[in-house]
Amino acid sequence: MSGFPLTIAATDGAARTGFLETPRGRIRTPAFMPVGTQATVKTMYPEQVRTLGADIVLANTYHLLLRPGAERVARLGGLHDFMRWPYPILTDSGGFQVMSLASLRKVDADGVSFRSHIDGSEHRLSPERSIEIQLLLDSDVVMQLDECLALPAELAEVERAMRLSLTWGERSKAAFGVAQGKALFGIVQGGDVPALRLQSAKGLVGIGFDGYAVGGLAVGEPQATMLKILDATVPALPKEKPRYLMGVGTPDDILESVARGIDMFDCVLPTRAGRHGLAYTRFGKLNMKNARHADDAAPIDAESDCPASRDYSRGYIHHLVKAGEALGAMLLTWNNLAYYQTLMAEARAAIAAGRYADHLAATKEAWKPGGEA
Amino acid sequence: MSGFPLTIAATDGAARTGFLETPRGRIRTPAFMPVGTQATVKTMYPEQVRTLGADIVLANTYHLLLRPGAERVARLGGLHDFMRWPYPILTDSGGFQVMSLASLRKVDADGVSFRSHIDGSEHRLSPERSIEIQLLLDSDVVMQLDECLALPAELAEVERAMRLSLTWGERSKAAFGVAQGKALFGIVQGGDVPALRLQSAKGLVGIGFDGYAVGGLAVGEPQATMLKILDATVPALPKEKPRYLMGVGTPDDILESVARGIDMFDCVLPTRAGRHGLAYTRFGKLNMKNARHADDAAPIDAESDCPASRDYSRGYIHHLVKAGEALGAMLLTWNNLAYYQTLMAEARAAIAAGRYADHLAATKEAWKPGGEA
Repeated sequence: MSGFPLTIAATDGAARTGFLETPRGRIRTPAFMPVGTQATVKTMYPEQVRTLGADIVLANTYHLLLRPGAERVARLGGLHDFMRWPYPILTDSGGFQVMSLASLRKVDADGVSFRSHIDGSEHRLSPERSIEIQLLLDSDVVMQLDECLALPAELAEVERAMRLSLTWGERSKAAFGVAQGKALFGIVQGGDVPALRLQSAKGLVGIGFDGYAVGGLAVGEPQATMLKILDATVPALPKEKPRYLMGVGTPDDILESVARGIDMFDCVLPTRAGRHGLAYTRFGKLNMKNARHADDAAPIDAESDCPASRDYSRGYIHHLVKAGEALGAMLLTWNNLAYYQTLMAEARAAIAAGRYADHLAATKEAWKPGGEA
Repeated sequence: MSGFPLTIAATDGAARTGFLETPRGRIRTPAFMPVGTQATVKTMYPEQVRTLGADIVLANTYHLLLRPGAERVARLGGLHDFMRWPYPILTDSGGFQVMSLASLRKVDADGVSFRSHIDGSEHRLSPERSIEIQLLLDSDVVMQLDECLALPAELAEVERAMRLSLTWGERSKAAFGVAQGKALFGIVQGGDVPALRLQSAKGLVGIGFDGYAVGGLAVGEPQATMLKILDATVPALPKEKPRYLMGVGTPDDILESVARGIDMFDCVLPTRAGRHGLAYTRFGKLNMKNARHADDAAPIDAESDCPASRDYSRGYIHHLVKAGEALGAMLLTWNNLAYYQTLMAEARAAIAAGRYADHLAATKEAWKPGGEA
């Protein structure tokens, strides 16, 4: 049997908290997965990521198949040894980056052909090859190949891509077989059309996966659209399986989605924002490039457990960011990932205590002083 | 009284080992000072730099006077608080970077006017202002302002700059006054002309400094030229004061200079090379971009105490460097600074054991397998 048992320890409305038990360790849910695109969470040592409380990280199949190559990673002992992360790893299918990064891509019923954005070399991804690559990487949570459209799109096009993704889901499951100790997740598609989302969810549940992701969101649509889609989709997913909202999102997006029953998240926002001078904090988002921080001897958050947030002055971080120093990005990424993990830990505690709605309102209120976008 | 007592615990030929006792901690000599140009040793957390065994770091007056400004650093509690390095700091005078980085510079008898390479703003550095800035930064080892020429240069020009530097040395000393708990170093100039170097050294000793630096070397001349100048200069410097060879150098340059009685070094090489994919090791220099490392599961040095050298595979580091990932530069800089500190610790031990010449020969022999330049 593939898949991990999900234990739901407490629920509060649609929100739930618990854990997934995997051979490589427990994943506390709701969970935020830092993104390690090229087998590294940018500017972070793996020990730091772990210490912050991350139970699982994400790596990108598209990037790794191009460089250093899945077969090479397999020869070097798999992704866990390669990137020194012995804990669970989720890999995406590669489909999303093929759509957003590769050139000359051509989707047909069997898969997608494309050229590398690095060197123009030709590649082919089919549902079977995507699974093969993810197993070569030795991923713990494997994602089916899907076709992810940019929104807005024509209704017929959205429906076609959703149906193709269902077919690819079926083929992905067959290729995955019974991968002991690993899980295969299906991906709900259907754009911003609730009826198509529902059809997709039901189709996937009919095939039967170890977990269910909601894909094709966080691609620029308003938060209200995303939440409407979750409201239409999540009730159709089995309670006893983990639910993963792909590529989401801001702290606000995450807390609102937790309220709707999502268990897992990934997003480049805390890492990318850290490289652009932005600090996520419990007081809101701070733009450390802003001159108002230049003479501030106070740290980002004196009460944080994270050294980056607690021990370095805002004035120093402002200087580092303005001077383009690597340490600026290192400290802000560290701060941001710390804040995201704190966000998840507090959400889990609030659900367990049955006060999630109050917690959500209070957290949003506390963000207001930041005021920098 | 300014200056720190130098204890010479052992000598071996001209080489010597011991320590400088400063109010901010002991500096074991011969010492390598990692370069923290803009108040950060690039890609390193200060705790890491310390753990490697660095007793002192260098920061650049030119860069800090332009950004964030010396007065601002002073308001934020001085450089030690600012960059979270509570141990000794040496600052240069700013003169070298004015010559190499600033535009529209104009040297006159009183000082140098220049425009910032960042925003074109006008600035003026005199011996007095350089000392004032270094004291605002709260530097522990302050350098006199000097004029540093590029080699080769006309003899008359070399002599003029050397005499100007002596005058500026005298004015620097007057401006420094009696800065309790701090040291002021004079700088020997005179290009590649032994007689001028000797004159400079004698002139500085006549003025009287807490330590003596040899400047204007490591600017592209052959190693033999540099060593010839040291042979001509060092015997004219007082035995009981520390001697600092500025901007040097490769591991080979450092060991050869230690053999000639130098106590302190600084160089951007280990940090800069780390950002360019190069690893300094006891087996020589490795170019981690080289494809021969791509499938290598072995670490850079399994016997090193440094996690960067010991725990990450060469294949992974190769991947990080090729992919332009920050972690590649972070790991290689860490490895390189670790190797440089090991180099100094081993040199100190060899001098203390009276086997420095053998140690030098054996270390050079061991570098041969690296073979990558």
